[in-house]
Amino acid sequence: MGKQNRSLHLNLFLASLGHHEAAWRHPASDVNGIYDFRYLERLAQKAEQAKLDSLFLADRYSTSQKAVKYGAVGGLEPLTLLSALAVVTKHIGLIATVSTSFNEPYNIARRFASLDHLSGGRAGWNIITSGTDSEAQNFNLDQIPAHHLRYERAKEFVEVALKLWDSWEEDALIKDKASGIYANNSKVHEPNHRGKHFSVRGPLNLSRSPQGRPLLVQAGSSADGKDFAAEYAEAIFTAQQTIEDARAFYADVKARIAQLGRIPEHVKILPGICPIIGESEAEAKEKEAQLHELTHPAYSLLQLSNRIGFDLSVYPLDGRLPELPATEQIAGHQSRTQLIRDLADREKLTIRELLLRLAGGRGHLTIAGTAKQVADELEQWFVSGAADGFNIMPQLTYGGLDDFLDQVVPELQRRGLFRTEYTGTKLRDHYDLPYPSNQYAASLEHPST
Amino acid sequence: MGKQNRSLHLNLFLASLGHHEAAWRHPASDVNGIYDFRYLERLAQKAEQAKLDSLFLADRYSTSQKAVKYGAVGGLEPLTLLSALAVVTKHIGLIATVSTSFNEPYNIARRFASLDHLSGGRAGWNIITSGTDSEAQNFNLDQIPAHHLRYERAKEFVEVALKLWDSWEEDALIKDKASGIYANNSKVHEPNHRGKHFSVRGPLNLSRSPQGRPLLVQAGSSADGKDFAAEYAEAIFTAQQTIEDARAFYADVKARIAQLGRIPEHVKILPGICPIIGESEAEAKEKEAQLHELTHPAYSLLQLSNRIGFDLSVYPLDGRLPELPATEQIAGHQSRTQLIRDLADREKLTIRELLLRLAGGRGHLTIAGTAKQVADELEQWFVSGAADGFNIMPQLTYGGLDDFLDQVVPELQRRGLFRTEYTGTKLRDHYDLPYPSNQYAASLEHPST
Repeated sequence: MGKQNRSLHLNLFLASLGHHEAAWRHPASDVNGIYDFRYLERLAQKAEQAKLDSLFLADRYSTSQKAVKYGAVGGLEPLTLLSALAVVTKHIGLIATVSTSFNEPYNIARRFASLDHLSGGRAGWNIITSGTDSEAQNFNLDQIPAHHLRYERAKEFVEVALKLWDSWEEDALIKDKASGIYANNSKVHEPNHRGKHFSVRGPLNLSRSPQGRPLLVQAGSSADGKDFAAEYAEAIFTAQQTIEDARAFYADVKARIAQLGRIPEHVKILPGICPIIGESEAEAKEKEAQLHELTHPAYSLLQLSNRIGFDLSVYPLDGRLPELPATEQIAGHQSRTQLIRDLADREKLTIRELLLRLAGGRGHLTIAGTAKQVADELEQWFVSGAADGFNIMPQLTYGGLDDFLDQVVPELQRRGLFRTEYTGTKLRDHYDLPYPSNQYAASLEHPST
Repeated sequence: MGKQNRSLHLNLFLASLGHHEAAWRHPASDVNGIYDFRYLERLAQKAEQAKLDSLFLADRYSTSQKAVKYGAVGGLEPLTLLSALAVVTKHIGLIATVSTSFNEPYNIARRFASLDHLSGGRAGWNIITSGTDSEAQNFNLDQIPAHHLRYERAKEFVEVALKLWDSWEEDALIKDKASGIYANNSKVHEPNHRGKHFSVRGPLNLSRSPQGRPLLVQAGSSADGKDFAAEYAEAIFTAQQTIEDARAFYADVKARIAQLGRIPEHVKILPGICPIIGESEAEAKEKEAQLHELTHPAYSLLQLSNRIGFDLSVYPLDGRLPELPATEQIAGHQSRTQLIRDLADREKLTIRELLLRLAGGRGHLTIAGTAKQVADELEQWFVSGAADGFNIMPQLTYGGLDDFLDQVVPELQRRGLFRTEYTGTKLRDHYDLPYPSNQYAASLEHPST
């Protein structure tokens, strides 16, 4: 285990039937699970029994009439589902994706504070800027705004949210029935934010939540994304195809964090991993092949074209990927597009082969093998500076999630790499992260109520 | 019971500790209940045991640093709380207030469709336009937009939401694993809405929900509000101080509905009632007086000034209400301001007396008496063309809600005025309302899957 005395962190990236785009077609899947709360509840409770740090829901603000033919239908809106899961779980963290491009900070600060209250301090926010024209077209725009403009708005959005979460000091509530004084209003602040994108007076209309604010998570790995993460994130989801790339990303981001005067250990880096477990490596590969056989190239192509903002339908499936626009000219998802191009180049993949490589996890690394092999790989990444933990993305939920929780997690626990009991009740406790201070609290003042 | 063979409808207007502004100070109240889900869950389950049609949460998008001193702190954001309550209840409807002025239709259509899926068809939307500058100041504005402009935006907002809810036909899902066809995409539509306030391409990114769309509720009683309600509402919450006013309102709105070619019975009118129950009328009045004694005039004045958009703090408490701006010049809450002015004029109230009249229900009628007296009054309103049911607003939740559910509801049931069992599972079933048709479905086509 080397020099570290640290534990790794595990987040379940919940996709109702699985991350593979054909998971719904698998014989084991019950396709009605997408909207079946009792099924989703069982998944969350199972992850909690395995002592995972958190579960996480991605989000997208559109679907396409073409793509739904093959299954691109979204599930329940993330904060809606997590609000329901909050009251049927006790420990596991609940991380929702919300876009800063198509929302207002007052509403979002309030919803996360509400989820944090409701869950007793288990809310997390995966901050995204969204990256497709099809989403922009649902919000009064023709095209997705330029990459740097989205991040500019995102920064101001988060600054406003931080002010709103801090607008109530922790000891602002007095609740003295005798005098009728509910709050010490010298500890309730009006941010009076006036910026380029937002003007927000405040204060927030509910009191400070158990964690002070949700855990801040970020997932973009572009230059803009890394800068943003270094400044605000407490956990980072990332897609890395090789341990070398993951180490380089890890070192780069931790250096950016230190450069900003933050403590690198206070930001956990969690690459996404799609585990496929078999009794043997051959059986695991067979499971993957079985899912691949269920894909529709036409669907895979629509998904990829939408993701990279470039129509690939006119290119031959058995030819190579055409020249894509330079990364800095991409308005949408820069880092994922670059990862996809690098992957195709490095492995000299045809479009058809590339589609299969992306079908299971959209660019996240698949590890198909025995439970021991998967644990070995996770351990190697963890101890060699490639990861602080992992964003677990089962390609198939039915069976596949159980395989990971029942076989790989106990193996990691036996190796002393993962907790066997929760030691705290809040999401920040699980991730060994400090509680945020309040920008409006007078630092020398001692609380008096 | 006269000529009707109809049942009345009961909605619980849930305010965690009660509608009286001093409810939190009452000895019976546990002030921590505001954020205590297990407490709120018990209230919802109790209302469901009493077979109420629905429960409803109001909403406001601001609080004031001054007012929180005395208790004006908001609870959990409505859709967050209702999402959690959805999975611990089975029958009762769940109506959330959401403003059209400070949200985007794609997000809201999606959240209500998600709640409708999650609850098995029990979602309702109380559509508001919001009416205070303090709310506008949390959303990049200095002042609340003019009344008619807010309603103009609200109409387009609802039109877009209706298109999005209809963007998936009911039989669009095929889910055929063998062929890999998930949806019949000729039954998934792109609204391509382009209007003055919104451009939204669609389709919605989740399938048609059990009710097709949430029950649409409206609560404004201004001329703009009544026109809006006549066009879109399926249930109307209203504040009426006298049975005569309630009858006039009822007749007016039902006529507007008929004039638009809609069926008047398909819109239920529910005046708000604050019941205070005692063993005797004197005991009930004593309960009310006890709550009134706990008020702070300074707080009541802040609340009233904010509500009517007019600063009353410079006027003597024991003098009469000053001349307020003419109704049509009020940007904010027109009908409520007019109700307050009429009430003060009719009963020749001083400001101090007016504040007490508003402390319990902000302009809704208080009925303090025995359970039988309350039931008599509700019956009289119901059978004489003043109401199709009631929006029940206990001034005090602890004790007060139980009094209504345990004493008045059984009395209404004994009289044959209220259900003793739920006969359906969806909110529209409880309110005897038809299911909406789909504007995109070819009317002559028979569903084939």
